[in-house]
Amino acid sequence: MAISNAIKNFKMTVNPDFVAKAQALTPTLIETEITPVRTVAIVPDGPDFAARELEPNFTASNPMGRDDTLSLDFGGHQVGYLSFTLTPVGSPADAPAYLKLKFGEVPYEIAANTSDYSGEVSRAWLQEEVIHVDVLPARVQLPRRYAFRYLQLVVLDTSAKYKVVISNVVCKSVSSADWSVVPPLKVSDPELERLDRVSLKTMHDCMQLVFEDGPKRDRRLWLGDLRLQALTSSVTFRSDSLVKRCLYLFAGLTQNEGRVGACLFLEPAPQVDDTALFDYALFFVSTLHDYFEASRDRETMADLFPTARRQLELALNEVDENGIVADREGWWCFLDWGEGLNKQAGAHAILIYALKQGIKLARWAGDEAQASVWEETAGELSQAALRHLWDEGQGFFVSGAERQVSWASQVWFALAGVLDQEGNVRLLERLMAENPAIPMVTPYMYHYFIDALMENGLQDQALEAMKSYWGGMVRAGADTFWELYDPKDPYASPYGSRAINSFCHAWSGTPAYFIRKYFQD
Amino acid sequence: MAISNAIKNFKMTVNPDFVAKAQALTPTLIETEITPVRTVAIVPDGPDFAARELEPNFTASNPMGRDDTLSLDFGGHQVGYLSFTLTPVGSPADAPAYLKLKFGEVPYEIAANTSDYSGEVSRAWLQEEVIHVDVLPARVQLPRRYAFRYLQLVVLDTSAKYKVVISNVVCKSVSSADWSVVPPLKVSDPELERLDRVSLKTMHDCMQLVFEDGPKRDRRLWLGDLRLQALTSSVTFRSDSLVKRCLYLFAGLTQNEGRVGACLFLEPAPQVDDTALFDYALFFVSTLHDYFEASRDRETMADLFPTARRQLELALNEVDENGIVADREGWWCFLDWGEGLNKQAGAHAILIYALKQGIKLARWAGDEAQASVWEETAGELSQAALRHLWDEGQGFFVSGAERQVSWASQVWFALAGVLDQEGNVRLLERLMAENPAIPMVTPYMYHYFIDALMENGLQDQALEAMKSYWGGMVRAGADTFWELYDPKDPYASPYGSRAINSFCHAWSGTPAYFIRKYFQD
Repeated sequence: MAISNAIKNFKMTVNPDFVAKAQALTPTLIETEITPVRTVAIVPDGPDFAARELEPNFTASNPMGRDDTLSLDFGGHQVGYLSFTLTPVGSPADAPAYLKLKFGEVPYEIAANTSDYSGEVSRAWLQEEVIHVDVLPARVQLPRRYAFRYLQLVVLDTSAKYKVVISNVVCKSVSSADWSVVPPLKVSDPELERLDRVSLKTMHDCMQLVFEDGPKRDRRLWLGDLRLQALTSSVTFRSDSLVKRCLYLFAGLTQNEGRVGACLFLEPAPQVDDTALFDYALFFVSTLHDYFEASRDRETMADLFPTARRQLELALNEVDENGIVADREGWWCFLDWGEGLNKQAGAHAILIYALKQGIKLARWAGDEAQASVWEETAGELSQAALRHLWDEGQGFFVSGAERQVSWASQVWFALAGVLDQEGNVRLLERLMAENPAIPMVTPYMYHYFIDALMENGLQDQALEAMKSYWGGMVRAGADTFWELYDPKDPYASPYGSRAINSFCHAWSGTPAYFIRKYFQD
Repeated sequence: MAISNAIKNFKMTVNPDFVAKAQALTPTLIETEITPVRTVAIVPDGPDFAARELEPNFTASNPMGRDDTLSLDFGGHQVGYLSFTLTPVGSPADAPAYLKLKFGEVPYEIAANTSDYSGEVSRAWLQEEVIHVDVLPARVQLPRRYAFRYLQLVVLDTSAKYKVVISNVVCKSVSSADWSVVPPLKVSDPELERLDRVSLKTMHDCMQLVFEDGPKRDRRLWLGDLRLQALTSSVTFRSDSLVKRCLYLFAGLTQNEGRVGACLFLEPAPQVDDTALFDYALFFVSTLHDYFEASRDRETMADLFPTARRQLELALNEVDENGIVADREGWWCFLDWGEGLNKQAGAHAILIYALKQGIKLARWAGDEAQASVWEETAGELSQAALRHLWDEGQGFFVSGAERQVSWASQVWFALAGVLDQEGNVRLLERLMAENPAIPMVTPYMYHYFIDALMENGLQDQALEAMKSYWGGMVRAGADTFWELYDPKDPYASPYGSRAINSFCHAWSGTPAYFIRKYFQD
């Protein structure tokens, strides 16, 4: 995620005990040395670019001088640190070697002219470096971490008297995810196998010292992303301790009024961002719910239930006199990217959804009184939704003053369970049949659509939607699932440049969750 | 120097004993922390650019975001390492800070559009960096050394949520020259005082672990430059041990046939370049001559006389059947930059000049037999010069098949002493009066012109020429003397771009030598 709003008079409250518990759970990164598998040329390919193989392997470049280029393919998506050997040939090196490096998760990033980038997201995320190497030969080790499959090295200059050979190119790839704990997949459908494999790689590459949203951009722990990562981790890399660490970080570093932030930073010291999102705060409840359901970790529950409760209290404060979450200007609730999406109905549905999980948390925490209160509240919120947001004529939930009908609103109401299951099924079938104008645009929102279908017994439709949507990325050559994917406009970016999109984004990696939970033989 | 020719089948011979002696003399660098004295704007100034003061001091920048620029003036030329503090303001830094830094010895380098640079010299010498700072706040320490007075920092990007403040900008300036040993200057002429001061600063900034030619480019020990640096050092920073170290390096790292190279590299290990220059090799003789004359260091003489003798032998091998140094194609002898300069006559004169110093070296080394042989040879070379290179009709020495008349040829013959002093005086006066078409273009060649005037009693003309030529650079704002200066075209570059010229170049710093040797009160 990249755009955000800042809350006013932001102030962080630290619970040192929680932060210490989180830091004690810091995972060890597993390092793997990866070498490029081939040299390529990045060439136009319809409206996109592709990597055309030049040589089926790579050991060392020919001597390279001013403006010579070498493009390497590491065979798959990597998150890690690059090093290579630079050897002068000819006379002794009488000037520094001057190189430009571009890293791309997809060929487009290599081909893109980034010098005229003017998108809203910081151009600092574009993965390119210009370096001088003063003493040759050298083992060049770049200190920054990159997310990439393709690497382009351009020799900006050597001198008239020498050239350089590039050899021993290595990416020290890092992840805290351990492939060896992933249960074997039992499916006979090769399409599902592919979706699972790409999901796993996506998850793997985002699992670092926390669950990052995307290892290229913005490498940060976001709560909405965490929730989906935790779900998928539970059936793949099984990193319960990383989920627990992230929950303690959010609970240990809160915003004004005890609100959990939308995202966190680890460096220079753990810190909550000043962005608050209505739905993301509630996903603390969901994530704790899922975690406890799987782990039955009572100590963590005892520590973190108060934080979960506080998120529900803060969200309930936003309910207006009609019993509906008040609509607001600005970027107050995420739901999905997508132009013009009104958030009110989705936010209201998520509040009901989270409150129902909160009721279970309260019971697990032994707070029956709280559970009873919330049961009553959930009923009131559901009634208010039916009264004010349900449009019987259209058969859809509507959102905001303009009574907008969006996919997101229907999906979240299907998950919130305001209608009975029959009503949910009709709602979802009508949604697919009538296809309202405000679509879903992120794999993140598609996850909840699939989830809603599964929860309401529409298994065939779920499978078809999953194969169609995520399968589209695989058919387009994805090694890892993308932050954004619109089948009608696969080259879209909300950021003003596709080169800044994240092409390995954790919130897109949930097919493995569905496949492993529901679709194994 | 920047352009060079490589000798064929180049092979280095190492004398480990000599190299060890050289390394034992490695000087300690004196470090001084320098902070910027003002913020400036780099603005057009006639055909050049100038630094216009914006604020008379600098502590911290205003918050800077995308495309904001800060230009700083360090008050004088620096050679050193930059560090600064980068502090985010606004929300927590949610993207790396992305900066471009340009370092300029003169304002022009800041203003120059280096992206379209296509000069012959490596663009790697252009002093600019593009860096990402991932964790903020940060103390940024650039690992490379720069030569500069002006620093331009451009924030390529932060993010929509934060900006950066730049503060505590420090240059850790380095030099092995010790200001405290420089004898006080006794002159009453403020013009001479200025020339001396700029000379000293030039020398100081080039005195590093060896005598570098220029601390911006190419930071290397060249023999022709060393000779002038050693002379000037003897009356200023008095670093005899650095001269000795450099002599041992040249003698310890020789090319094929025991030839000393034109230049040396220190890293990754001491190494002689594959460039051979007829005159530069002979300046090993001159430098050892000057060194011994001042130091009477008999051990060094005993070690290094064989190397000096070998240079004379190799040069004498180049004498043809007429007794004249054979003319050659290519860049075999330096003399001076400058289009079309024929090197034959200058080379022949330098051979005689060096041979006369060799005769003194032989006597100092106790080799009277060698001295006698060389006295005879010197006489033969002089006679051959008068017979084949002296044009009685023109009253000039001519060079090459085209019988070219250049300033350089006359200057070197005046120094070689082939004519008697009266003849030299007439030659020099005729030279100044008739001003032949092939001029001098470097301060290096001007040094020998001044030297020839002084050696032949033309003190007033020497003083006038020095004030006119070096004074021109001072009047143009030089903090340190430039590699190249043509009073008729002060913005010239032999390298295709003035931005790549060196504006602190040791071979230009000899006014202090002349002033302190001849012009003190």
